[in-house]
Parts: sequence; C-alpha cells; structure tokens
Amino acid sequence: MTYRIEHDTMGDVQVPADKYWGAQTQRSRNNFKIGPEASMPKEIIEAFAYLKKAAAFTNTDAGILPVEKRDLIAAVCDEILAGELAAEFPLVIWQTGSGTQSNMNVNEVIANRAHVLHGNTLGEGKTFIHPNDDVNKSQSSNDTYPTAMHIAAYKMVIETTIPGIEKLRDMLKSKSEAFKDVVKIGRTHLMDATPLTLGQEFSGYVSQLDHGLKAVRNTLEHLSELALGGTAVGTGINTPKGYDVNVAKYIADFTGLPFRTAENKFEALAAHDAIVETHGALKRVAVSLMKIANDIRLLASGPRSGIGEIHIPDNEPGSSIMPGKVNPTQNEAVTMVAAQVMGNDVTISVAGSNGHYELNVFKPVMAANFLQSARLIGDACVSFTENCAAGIEPNYDGIKKHLENSLMLVTALNPHIGYENAAKIAKTALKENKSLREAAIGLGLLTNEQFDEWVRPEDMIGGLK
Amino acid sequence: MTYRIEHDTMGDVQVPADKYWGAQTQRSRNNFKIGPEASMPKEIIEAFAYLKKAAAFTNTDAGILPVEKRDLIAAVCDEILAGELAAEFPLVIWQTGSGTQSNMNVNEVIANRAHVLHGNTLGEGKTFIHPNDDVNKSQSSNDTYPTAMHIAAYKMVIETTIPGIEKLRDMLKSKSEAFKDVVKIGRTHLMDATPLTLGQEFSGYVSQLDHGLKAVRNTLEHLSELALGGTAVGTGINTPKGYDVNVAKYIADFTGLPFRTAENKFEALAAHDAIVETHGALKRVAVSLMKIANDIRLLASGPRSGIGEIHIPDNEPGSSIMPGKVNPTQNEAVTMVAAQVMGNDVTISVAGSNGHYELNVFKPVMAANFLQSARLIGDACVSFTENCAAGIEPNYDGIKKHLENSLMLVTALNPHIGYENAAKIAKTALKENKSLREAAIGLGLLTNEQFDEWVRPEDMIGGLK
Amino acid sequence: MTYRIEHDTMGDVQVPADKYWGAQTQRSRNNFKIGPEASMPKEIIEAFAYLKKAAAFTNTDAGILPVEKRDLIAAVCDEILAGELAAEFPLVIWQTGSGTQSNMNVNEVIANRAHVLHGNTLGEGKTFIHPNDDVNKSQSSNDTYPTAMHIAAYKMVIETTIPGIEKLRDMLKSKSEAFKDVVKIGRTHLMDATPLTLGQEFSGYVSQLDHGLKAVRNTLEHLSELALGGTAVGTGINTPKGYDVNVAKYIADFTGLPFRTAENKFEALAAHDAIVETHGALKRVAVSLMKIANDIRLLASGPRSGIGEIHIPDNEPGSSIMPGKVNPTQNEAVTMVAAQVMGNDVTISVAGSNGHYELNVFKPVMAANFLQSARLIGDACVSFTENCAAGIEPNYDGIKKHLENSLMLVTALNPHIGYENAAKIAKTALKENKSLREAAIGLGLLTNEQFDEWVRPEDMIGGLK
Amino acid sequence: MTYRIEHDTMGDVQVPADKYWGAQTQRSRNNFKIGPEASMPKEIIEAFAYLKKAAAFTNTDAGILPVEKRDLIAAVCDEILAGELAAEFPLVIWQTGSGTQSNMNVNEVIANRAHVLHGNTLGEGKTFIHPNDDVNKSQSSNDTYPTAMHIAAYKMVIETTIPGIEKLRDMLKSKSEAFKDVVKIGRTHLMDATPLTLGQEFSGYVSQLDHGLKAVRNTLEHLSELALGGTAVGTGINTPKGYDVNVAKYIADFTGLPFRTAENKFEALAAHDAIVETHGALKRVAVSLMKIANDIRLLASGPRSGIGEIHIPDNEPGSSIMPGKVNPTQNEAVTMVAAQVMGNDVTISVAGSNGHYELNVFKPVMAANFLQSARLIGDACVSFTENCAAGIEPNYDGIKKHLENSLMLVTALNPHIGYENAAKIAKTALKENKSLREAAIGLGLLTNEQFDEWVRPEDMIGGLK
Repeated sequence: MTYRIEHDTMGDVQVPADKYWGAQTQRSRNNFKIGPEASMPKEIIEAFAYLKKAAAFTNTDAGILPVEKRDLIAAVCDEILAGELAAEFPLVIWQTGSGTQSNMNVNEVIANRAHVLHGNTLGEGKTFIHPNDDVNKSQSSNDTYPTAMHIAAYKMVIETTIPGIEKLRDMLKSKSEAFKDVVKIGRTHLMDATPLTLGQEFSGYVSQLDHGLKAVRNTLEHLSELALGGTAVGTGINTPKGYDVNVAKYIADFTGLPFRTAENKFEALAAHDAIVETHGALKRVAVSLMKIANDIRLLASGPRSGIGEIHIPDNEPGSSIMPGKVNPTQNEAVTMVAAQVMGNDVTISVAGSNGHYELNVFKPVMAANFLQSARLIGDACVSFTENCAAGIEPNYDGIKKHLENSLMLVTALNPHIGYENAAKIAKTALKENKSLREAAIGLGLLTNEQFDEWVRPEDMIGGLK
Repeated sequence: MTYRIEHDTMGDVQVPADKYWGAQTQRSRNNFKIGPEASMPKEIIEAFAYLKKAAAFTNTDAGILPVEKRDLIAAVCDEILAGELAAEFPLVIWQTGSGTQSNMNVNEVIANRAHVLHGNTLGEGKTFIHPNDDVNKSQSSNDTYPTAMHIAAYKMVIETTIPGIEKLRDMLKSKSEAFKDVVKIGRTHLMDATPLTLGQEFSGYVSQLDHGLKAVRNTLEHLSELALGGTAVGTGINTPKGYDVNVAKYIADFTGLPFRTAENKFEALAAHDAIVETHGALKRVAVSLMKIANDIRLLASGPRSGIGEIHIPDNEPGSSIMPGKVNPTQNEAVTMVAAQVMGNDVTISVAGSNGHYELNVFKPVMAANFLQSARLIGDACVSFTENCAAGIEPNYDGIKKHLENSLMLVTALNPHIGYENAAKIAKTALKENKSLREAAIGLGLLTNEQFDEWVRPEDMIGGLK
Repeated sequence: MTYRIEHDTMGDVQVPADKYWGAQTQRSRNNFKIGPEASMPKEIIEAFAYLKKAAAFTNTDAGILPVEKRDLIAAVCDEILAGELAAEFPLVIWQTGSGTQSNMNVNEVIANRAHVLHGNTLGEGKTFIHPNDDVNKSQSSNDTYPTAMHIAAYKMVIETTIPGIEKLRDMLKSKSEAFKDVVKIGRTHLMDATPLTLGQEFSGYVSQLDHGLKAVRNTLEHLSELALGGTAVGTGINTPKGYDVNVAKYIADFTGLPFRTAENKFEALAAHDAIVETHGALKRVAVSLMKIANDIRLLASGPRSGIGEIHIPDNEPGSSIMPGKVNPTQNEAVTMVAAQVMGNDVTISVAGSNGHYELNVFKPVMAANFLQSARLIGDACVSFTENCAAGIEPNYDGIKKHLENSLMLVTALNPHIGYENAAKIAKTALKENKSLREAAIGLGLLTNEQFDEWVRPEDMIGGLK
Repeated sequence: MTYRIEHDTMGDVQVPADKYWGAQTQRSRNNFKIGPEASMPKEIIEAFAYLKKAAAFTNTDAGILPVEKRDLIAAVCDEILAGELAAEFPLVIWQTGSGTQSNMNVNEVIANRAHVLHGNTLGEGKTFIHPNDDVNKSQSSNDTYPTAMHIAAYKMVIETTIPGIEKLRDMLKSKSEAFKDVVKIGRTHLMDATPLTLGQEFSGYVSQLDHGLKAVRNTLEHLSELALGGTAVGTGINTPKGYDVNVAKYIADFTGLPFRTAENKFEALAAHDAIVETHGALKRVAVSLMKIANDIRLLASGPRSGIGEIHIPDNEPGSSIMPGKVNPTQNEAVTMVAAQVMGNDVTISVAGSNGHYELNVFKPVMAANFLQSARLIGDACVSFTENCAAGIEPNYDGIKKHLENSLMLVTALNPHIGYENAAKIAKTALKENKSLREAAIGLGLLTNEQFDEWVRPEDMIGGLK
C-alpha cells in the first residue's frame, strides 16, 4: 500500500494514498483497534452529510462562508448520501466518546474530496476547503455528533421501525377480524380457562402494538430536537446569530423530517435522554413482541403433541436430523431480536447515565445500539408479517378438541349454582374422567336442560371486543 | 396461638383465631414462605379497597347485589383505606403470579369483617357476605389484580413521583436563574473547555427534568386504562352489561383520578405493557438523576483537593474516622436510587415479556418493582431538594481560579487567527507553563490589545439560554 | 414522644428518649426520608455485630482497648445477634453510599447500651464507651461496611441459597431416577421431536443446578475476603500492627465461616467486584430456575387442553372465578424470583461500576439487592421443592398419547433409508393424517417388519444418561 | 446475477450460480432479511469447520463414513479455517434460534465444495457427499450449534479476552510498582481523605483485574463441555457408540484446547448456562474496567482546572473546535465497551432463561453477544494498555499541591487528641481558610513539635501493600 503524508495540529501522519480521509481519521484507526473495522453505523455518516450540508448553507446565509465553498461541501455531502464514498469511513464505535474522530473523518473526507472536485489532485497542495475552518465552521463534535444521532435515530424510527410495527399490527388486525367467530378454549396460568374467540386473542396483540406505536410516537418530539448550534459546551461559541434555528430548518428541509433546534443546548450535549427515552419505548415494543411471538408459537406447537390450535407457514426444513420437521423460525428470530433490544436498553441507560459536566462521552455506543434496535424491530416485524403472520390459519380440529374437553366451561354456572357447587362439578369431572355434563347431572346439581341452556361457549365470549 | 377452622373448595384450613383472613389466604401463607412476610405492597391492598367498593356499587346498580351487602362491603373498604386493617394482609409478592391469593385475601377479610360489622362473631356461622359470590362478584383475580396495579401505580406517580421531580426541577430552576451571571470554566471529556455560566450548567439539569416529566406524563394515558370487567380471560364472562365502563367510573370517582375502562381487555390481562411503558419513563428519569447528582458532587468535590466550584450543605459528620469530613450524601442516595430503578426496569421488562396466552403471571413482581421505583424517585427528589439542592451556593474563589487558569479560552481566537494557530498558542502555554496571553504574544500571533478584545470569557457564553 | 439531646461534632440533635441510637443516626433519619423506614437489611446489622465484637477483641489483644470495654462491647454485640435490639436500627438503604450512618448507628447503640449495662441511665452522663474512639477504634465506615457486606452475603449464600438449591437439585435428581424408564416425546422449537425419557428430561435440570452450585461456589473465595483493616482509604491508618489479619480470624471464629483479610484493601474499599461476581453466579442460577420452572408448568399444563405429561400438586384454589381451577403457582413464584434476580444483577453491576477513587459509595444498595436475591433464591427453591417438585408424577395417559402420535420417530429411519426419504414419510403422514407406519408402507419405502424393527421409541433414547 | 436450482426436502430454490451454498441457506436468506447481511459471527463458522472435521474423523473411526469422504470434508474444513470461503456464509443472526440454517449452510458449502474438489462442476450432478447424510452424519443442529458456540467462545476468551486483560493487569502492576513512593491525597465520596501512594491506588486496579481473571477462569470448565453427540434432543440418537467422547477428543486435538464431552447432553441442548456463566464473569470484568478507566480519566483531568495528578498520553487532537485540547479517549472507548458488555449480559440472560423443553432457541443471539463482549474486552484492554496506561506518569506538581492543602491529614491526630478535637481543628482550618497546623496551634490543642511529629503523610500510608 502506498501512503501520503497528512498533517494535523499534532504533526504528520501516513494515510493510504488513495483515501480521502486525513490525519485525524488515521490517528483514530491507529489508536483504536477494537472490534471489526468500520463499525460506526453508516446511518450516522449519512446524518453527518445532511448536517454538514445544512451547516454550509447556514454559514453562507450568515455571510461567513463563500457560496463556492458551500456548493463544494454540499456536492460532497450529496455524494456521501448517494453512497458513493462508503469506503471512506473506516472508524469504529469504540473511539472517543464524543465521536470527534468520526466528525473529523467526515470533515477530512469532504475537504479532500472537494479538493479533487475543485480540480486538484488528492494530497497535492493546500486544500481549498479546510476541514476545521470551513467544513466544521460554526460546529463542534460536541454538537454535531448528537445532532447526527438524532437525525439517524429519528429517520430509522420513521422509515423502518414504525412502518414495520404497523405492518405487523395491520396483519394481526386482519387476522383478528377473520377469526372473530372461532370460539376456542382460553388459558390462564397455562391452564385451561373459559373460552374466547381466536379473534379476541389476536385483538390483544393488536392492542399491544397499537399502544406500542403510540408510546414510540410520544417520544419523538424530544428526539426531534437538534443540538447543533451549541458547539463546544452548549453556549454556541463561534456561531453566528440565529444559526441554531436556521441550521435545524435546513436539516428539516433536507431530510423531510420535523427537526427543530433543541430547547436547551446544555442538555443536548451533556445528556442523551431523548435517546434513552425513545429506546425505552422500543424496548417496550420488544417486550410486546416477545409475548406475541411466543404465544403464536405455543398455539402452533405440534404438529401432533403440542397445542395445535393454529397453523403457521412451513418455510424451511426445520431440522438437519429430524426429517419433515418444521419450526416456528420467524418467531424465534423475533424473540431473539426482543432479547437483543432488552439488553441494548441497558447499554443505552448505563451510557446515558454516565455523562460528566458539559458532555456525555458515550455517544457512539448509544447511537450504535439505538440504530441496531430500531432496525431489527422494523425488519423483524416485516419478516414475521410476511413469512409467518400472513399465513396463520386456525386449526379447527385442534381448537374443537380442546374446547370440548375443557372443564372451565363450568364457570358459566357460577351465577346459577354458586362458585362452590360449580367447583364440585369440575373436580368430580376431572377426578372421574367425565364430561362436565355427566358430572353435573351425576351430582344432581342441575338438569340436562339447564346444562344445555347455561353452558354455551358461544355465550361465554362476551360482548367485549 | 389459637386457631379457627376456615374452609374453601379444597377443604379445611387452620387460621389464627383473631385474624379476618380465611382459608385461601392461609394456604398462601403456608405455601409461600419466600422472603419477609407481608411484602405485597400496601398500595396494592389500598387499590383493591377502591376497586372492591367500586365493584359493589356497580353490581348494585346492575341489580345483582343488594344495597345492604354493597354498604357492608364499602364500609370495610373504607376501613382498609383508613389503614385500620393493616395487619390483615400477610401475603408475599412471591405467590401466584396472578395475585389471586391477594385478591382472595381482600375478599376474605371483607367478608369476615363485614360479618362482624353485621353483628356477628368472627368464625361463627355462615358469613352474610360470601368472599367469592359477593365480594368478588363480576370479578376475577385476572382483572382485579391488574386493575389494582394500575390504580396503585398511577396514584404513586401522580402523588409522589411527579411532585418530587417537579420540586427538584423548580429548585434547580431557581438556582439556574440565581447563578445566571456566574461565568465558569466548562468541561468536556472531564477536560477544560470553553466557559459557560453556572446558571447555564444548571439549566441543562432543569431541561433534563422537564423533558423527563413530559416523558412520564406521556405514558399515563395507557396507565389509566383499567382491566376490570375482563374477568377470567378478557371476555367479561359473568359481568352484567355496561359493567366495565361503570366500574371504571366509580374508581375514577373514588380516587379522583382519570381512570377509564381498557380499550382491549385481552391485552389488559395478558400483558402489562402499560407498566413496562411508564416504568421505562421512570428509568429514563433515573438516568437523568444519575447524571445530575453525579455532576453536583463532582462540582462540590474538595474541600481543598477537588473541583470545588460549588458548596453543598453539610448535613452529617461524614466519616467515623476522618474528623471534620463532610460528604455529598444526598447525591449518594439519589444515585443509589437511580441504580435501583435501572435494575427494576429489567425485572419489569423480563416479567412483562413472559406472559402466556390469556394471562401474564408476573403481576406481583411487576407491581412491587414499579411501586418501589416510583416511590424512591419521588422521595429521593424531595430529600435531595431539601437537604442538598436548596443549599447549593457558588464557591466564587474556586470558580475564579479555574476560569483564569484555563487554556480553552483560546477557542475565541479561531475566527481571528484560525484553528491551527490557536492550537499553537494553547500548546505553547501548557508546555511552557505560561498564560495564554503570554504564549500568544510570545509567538507573535496577536497583540496585547487584540488579546484583551478577543479573549473575554463573558463574551464566550453566547446568547443561548 | 419525649426526646433527649444527643451530640456529635456538628452539634446537638433531638433523639427519642427511649432509643439507644445517638446524634448521627438521628441526623440520618431526619435527612433521608426515602422509602419505608428501617430498610437497611437486618443481616447487615448482624454482620456489624460480629465485626464490632471482633474489632474489640483484636484491639484488646493489641493493647489499645481495656478488657472491660471489650467485654461491654461484646455483650451488646451478643444482644444484637440475639435479636434483642432489633428496634434500634431505623435507617434506610438510601443514605450515604458508604453506609457510614449505619456504622455509626451500630457504634452509637453499642455505646449507649453499654452505658446502661455499665449501670448508668440512658442519656445521663458521659458514656464510658465512646462510639468513635472505642467502638469504632481501628475502623472506618469505609472498611466496616464492606466487611459487613461480605459477612452477610457469604452467610446468606451458605445458609440459605446453597442449601435451597441443593434441596431442589436432590429432589429433581430423585425424580429423574424415578422417571428413568418413562419414554416420552421430545420437543424442540416447541415442536414434536424424537423421544427421550422423562428421567432424562429431568436430568437436564439436575445438571443445570449442579453446574449452578459449582458456579456459585467458585465465587466464594473472593467473597471471603474482608476489607477490615483498610480503614479510611485502604492504607490501614490508625490500626495496630497485624490488626487486619487478626480481626479476620476473630470474625471467622465467631461466624464459623472461612473469612480472611483481603489481599488488597484498596480494591476492597473502592470496588465491590466480589459482590458483583457472586451475584453474577446467583443470576446465572436464576436463569436456570426460569427454564426449569417454566418447563415444568408447560409439561403440567391442562388438565385437558394443554400438554399434560406430568401432574403437579394442587395446593390452592386457582381462581376466584373459575371453579375447580388449579394453577402452577409455585412455578410462578420461582419465575418471579428469577425476574427479580435478573434485575437486581443490573442494579448491582451499575452500582459496582460507579466507584470513584478510593471508595465505592453504592454499598447499601449493593448489599440490599444481593441479600434479597440470595434469600429469594434459597427460599423459593425450598418452597418449590416442598410444594411442587416433591409431588411431581408422570401423567402416563398424556405421555402415551403424545408419544404414539408423534411423527418424529421417523428420525430412526435416517440410517436405513436416508434423510430425504424419511422426510417424505413424515410429510405424507402429516398431510394425509396417517400414522407413520401407514405412510411408510403406503409409500413403499419399507415393510411392516422393517418398521417394527427400526422404529422403536425405547431404542431411541440412547445410552446417554 | 445468474442462478442454479438447488433442492431440499421442500422443493427447488434458486441459488446464485457461483456460490457453494445450497437450498436451505438460500431459503434462510430469502426469509430472514433482518439487519445487515452475514451477521452470523465468523468465529461460529470457524468453529463449525473444526467440529465438522472432527465429526468426519469420528464417523470414519466408527466405520460409518468412508475415508475418502472424510478427507474431502476435512479438506473443505481446512479451507474454511484458512478463510478461503469467507464469502460463502451470508446468513444472519436473526434466523432460526437453533442455528439450523447456519449448520446447513456449512453442510451445503462443504458438500458442494467437496463436489468441486472431487473433480466435478458446481451444480452439475448429484454431489458425492450429501450435506445431511454425510457432512451432518451423527449430528443435529441442536448439538452442533451449541458445540460451535462453546468452541468459538472458549477460543475467544483464551486467545483474546484473557491475554488482553493480562496485558493491562501487567502494565498497571508495573505502574503500581513504579509509583510506590508517590504519596498523594486519598479521596472518598469524591472528597479529600487521608493520603496513600499512587502505587497503592493503582494496586487496587491490579487486584480488581487479578480477581477478574480468576473469575473468568473459574467458569471455563463448564464452557469446555461440548454438546456434540446429543444430536436431536440429547439422547444421541443416530450416533455410533462412543461418538460423543471421541468427537470431543478430536475437537480438543484440532483446536489445542481442553474440550470434553458434556456431562449431560440434555442440559447442553436445552440451556446455555455455561455461556450465561462465563459472560457473567466478563460482565464482572467490564464493571472493573468501568471503574478503572473512569478513575484514570478523573486523575488525569485538567490540564489546569481538573484534578491533574497524572499525565496520560496525548494521542489525537481532542476537539474540532477547541484548539490544543487533548482528551482521555482510550478511557472513553473502554467505558463504552463496559456499557456494551453490561447490556449484552442482559440479552444473554434473557435469552438463556427462555429455553423450552429440549432446546433453547436463542442460540445465535447468545453466541453473537458473547463473542462481541469477549472480543471487545480483549481488544479494548490492549488498546488502553498501549495507548494510555503505558504512558501514565505522575504529575508531581499536582500531587504535591493537593497533598499539602488537604485537611484530612488531621486523622493522624485521632489517637493523640481524640476524634472530636481533631474534628474541631479541621473545621476551624476550613472555615478560617488556615492550614491544619495554624488551626491546631491556634486552638491550643497541640504544639508545633507535636504537629511535626504526628502529622506526617509518609507515615499515614500504612504497611499495607
């Protein structure tokens, strides 16, 4: 590999000759060999492209950056957004906790790439655009990185997480409606209980996701606040008047999302409670998904020695040793995702709680965990919808068998003969391996006609949706 | 100890002669000797009193419970709410996961106490009021316990948690305003940075708590939903028409809080996402409190060998061996509470994710952890406000010393001489143990007059609040 | 209430006239109204009694405490250990993070109680024994509290946790042996799989607990290290020569447990990794218990519409609305305990990671969470053993029905006809609702005799234990 | 892209023409579009290569696999281990929870690659080696995947985690020795306390890591157990006699690590407590690292307005806006890693607790989180050692200033004038802004000579190491 020499305030550094990054990026590569290379999420890099472009426009509007420089910076940002410079961002999550090095990575790539776009050769001559004085003008890592976090997080939630959850919610809702007349045994404590419809059972899942969506959306207002304009410690040192409000408008404009400047820049640098807050809502959705996916696999268990009340699609051979086996693999992916998100929530909380004074320096780990969770939930919901939920069908035989066997239909007798007599019937039936009817009549507690009138599963499912 | 014999559908049980509880409570005592006795939170018992009274009124309105029985039930509920029967609820958290035994504990105590209020002797004769058929009429543990969870949780958040956070927020806000002209050094990465005011620093804490309060309140709508009326599996079996809506109204009326019947009873029994959701917001506040309390003790550290920029009150001798030592003990209580809440959040998430079919059977552990967190946050905020925050004063000497020494005032020179020259000055000053002024002039990069004009801490704190 | 005046280095304080505690205890009560009173675990107070007595003996041996004082101190310690002074320790967990106030609570109670034992009247005259200069001699809160943590934690693990786990392990082992010939269907992914014996299934649980016990024991060596002798910052200032080793010997002697002085006192004050470590092993056991208790309730589910392969004891009426219902309540208590321990582990980790310089100030929250986990695991294992595991019996009808229906017996054909042909048989049987035999012969892939010879569940359970 | 048709028991699938994987791998790609492609850890693939080779040898030894097939399988395994087939494993973590699809991915790649090595053309003709009947012979995903988990986890701990921790421990030990005579102020509760040496302070970190290493090693015995031989449900169906013991020997031989067959195969499939256990120890090390890295950055804070008692190396420009700023970036990477590991521990615990019956189906998420933690800890320790710890030097000026100012030297007077008089001196000095000496003499409590004799920091650091 050939190298060129790049320079920063600490001196010279060897950089691969064909890469646009500069001295500070290279120092980070040299000093942080932790985990796989380039682990910094690409969504963060994209978010930086939006904000660097927005900062350039705002600086030009404020009269402190020439139009020519603005347009060069914007051109490189557009290349980044188009994915054309993907190989130029080699840094890892496990660098400085302010993300300074990734901010400088972006600054350096923009400056060097602009140098080339400006008609020069990479590594030759002084760059027309300076990574700090131009690209980073009116900015600090301390406000750019958290701004990038919010942009990337908000976008992921809006574009991937929420649509994924909605897709699953809609599918489960259509199933709930399709199954609204399928009466089946209920189960509490895993034990037989009074009946309900399969549609009612699924309506619970729909309600979980509906409430979950509301919970996620409730947090977005805080997440829409951008730190940019706070610069080094939140005071906005070295920014022109009105900069914070204007740069947020440009970002909102470029992304099409309702970003606005943070109410309080000191909070926005020193704490990332908005990330903690929204991720808390994601974790809450993960908790719902664990329940839903687990229930569906329990209901589908079998095919002959399980519960067997629904069919789910057969997508892959389920076993490398047991021929013909099919497994609830989509449910397994979803529950694994849920476990991941539950752990990520702890990482984010620990990280969020450990800021000091004017800066929280756990930014990259918070960003990476948030983006992973948000993406996994969205992707997993889509995968589960398409490859599992869409194909769920009742197993009428299984449902009928369980319903007819159940002893808990006895509950319908409480208002007629009292809890204690009803209990006597159920216990007798179980002990003597009889049907409820046989036991009830055998005990002389009611007549055949009364049994027919009172014990009707279809009357036990209530008017509740 | 003397005993009487009580009876349930499983047979006879010996119960302490002077206690109002009955057979099922006693079975639970006998079968669940796990941890200290009576660990079921008393707020849950109180919530049961509200709901049993509300159920009695609703049943009477529906024509299925005589007024006399209603009034007797209500009379005992009022005694419970007045704290007069506190010794009658001996059960533990670690019982059945539906809380059935605590529901029956309440049912039995009401039935037996009503028996006595009705002029009879405890343990003699058939009780006028039956624990299942009357007290539990139109109810199941499966809907009463989650209803009690929401009542207790909502009340605690409204009465203790939010007022506590608000009190601290208000105090920090008044400090932020009082300190608005106290210019001090900023610190990022724990390292010296550009200046800000002490008031700005505190405004970040205020903003954290403001956003935290909003986050908690955002979750309350879901928490206001009550499961009652769902009975055994969510279908509302054995409830009269309109029961669910009406009973929620009575509960709202008795508690003065905006409870309403759950949109979906199947969710309300099988999942406790509302508890997960609100606790997620409590955990997010805990994360903020960790940062705030930690910062304040760092700022107050010393008295001679720490940061020493603020004074906090001396409340207790701080050491049993080091005479004259005073410690930031309130901060320590707050950060311990934060750690507790962060762990409770995991307990609640694990518990919430593990429901099966129509019922989540981790109800008591979820309730207990929620109530502990909600109470601790509220109490700790009040304690911290009164015993620490209220007494915070700037240590002007310390602040001045740090500000004057700082090298990061050099940042103000970026727009005038560029980032690289400014860096040269800072590095020279540090290396040669000089002031910035000395280094700047020594390097010939600016004049004395320029230094005076450009490097002014009071101009570096921006117009940002 | 009447009061007397007590005094410390900060001045006078009103103390309830009949209580032995002094000024510093009272200050803590006044300043820390957080959560229920007296939440500091009583095991910590007991541990303090051991260590104060040991310190007195060691000081006397070193010639710096008169025998008369030693014996008075020891006498009060013995009263504490006998539980006679239980009402004298009113402080909460949420106090100073060093536990200084609880250390002083013990010092004060000993000094004042000794004053009375010495023939004086509480509150009158100067106490013969000074809480700091005598009771706390050669000690600091900074080394006593962590010593108390280790004593209390070690004792609880040895006396409650390990015996509880062993009891459950032994019971499951006896069940595993009793069920060693009960061939049943296996299930993977919740789906039917190849057979195993019920004894083999239970042997997995035994192995989990065996390994878990080993894991817990592996951590005890670190937990046996005592900080005492480190005093204020770990240097042992104000201790006589040999004090640390000798005081550990006395503690070992008084408790009958193999305590020894910590290898490094700086670690022992500034970090509580031993608590983190042992609790990590407790959490690991909790993870096992979650699996075991969950499996057993799944196997016992029904009675008619579940898996129904084992019976567990009917301990209480299971429902306040569904007559005759019986639930796996012990399993629910165990799984709730597991969720609690998993959360406590996060609290302890967060707390353990946040020490600063020479002292970790999350001691009380670490102690309280540890002791809760250790006790709950022990108690829950005993409760589960006695009230559930001991009564587990196979449900032969259920086991037989599932085994005979299963399609996964086809796996036995892989070595004879290959995976793909075997899969064809299973799929045909499922699709056409046939038995394996019918499908196999129908497809012409083997003869009746071959089926008899090759498909024998009792031959499929291997020689593996 | 061109495709060929591959086939499995479910039918035909289009596969990229130039890839060695087959139908089941492709089904997984099609059905699990969750997160970035190829997220299954490469260490798991390598571990599969070891075990497939070992299984082939064991099968041949048992007479059920021809030598030619064995050698072809082994040849492909060697290619995988050499990294030559890295592009052939495109699957994600979020697939079936048994990892069946990755097991089949390996089986298919081996079969197809062997086909080519055997002189054929990919996709043409029946493969000489069958992915199930040959490569997977005597195996199931259910025992191979957990075996791969243990191999990969053990290797990573031995090769990366432990050496990394040891390297840091050794460096800190050498610093502890180098700094053994540097007397400095101690700090407890962040407040000034009695002195110790910088070497003693660092010895605490060494002790934390020493105990942490022991804790990790204590767990390795369980992790060395391999599930292989349990096949589908733990019974070892379709394995030759002695297979489990022999295959473990081959794996031990090929890897050079002390693997042995699991004591109980039912546990080894249904639970992954060994992973939970070892990760618990990793998390415990993370807790230590958080403390150590945090302390070191606090001690290094400044350069002028912090604690400033040590220097750490200046590795990168620390700010994009503040010229000359240098930050403790290595510490930040370490603390971010610690936060990640603390969260991963929850993911692993949740996953480990949710097995059902004969199989835990959270295997891939457990593997991925474990391997991430183990690698990050190892890498971060090396990075921190080389780029930070190695360059730590005392800042003698800072140390001296703090030591001389401290009031806590007064503690040395306790044995001479009592705790209360000593407190009086400290409080007077603080209040009147005097030195201890001035206050002591001013109060008439001791003479100049006594002060000289009794208050000697160098005598206050004890004989404790």
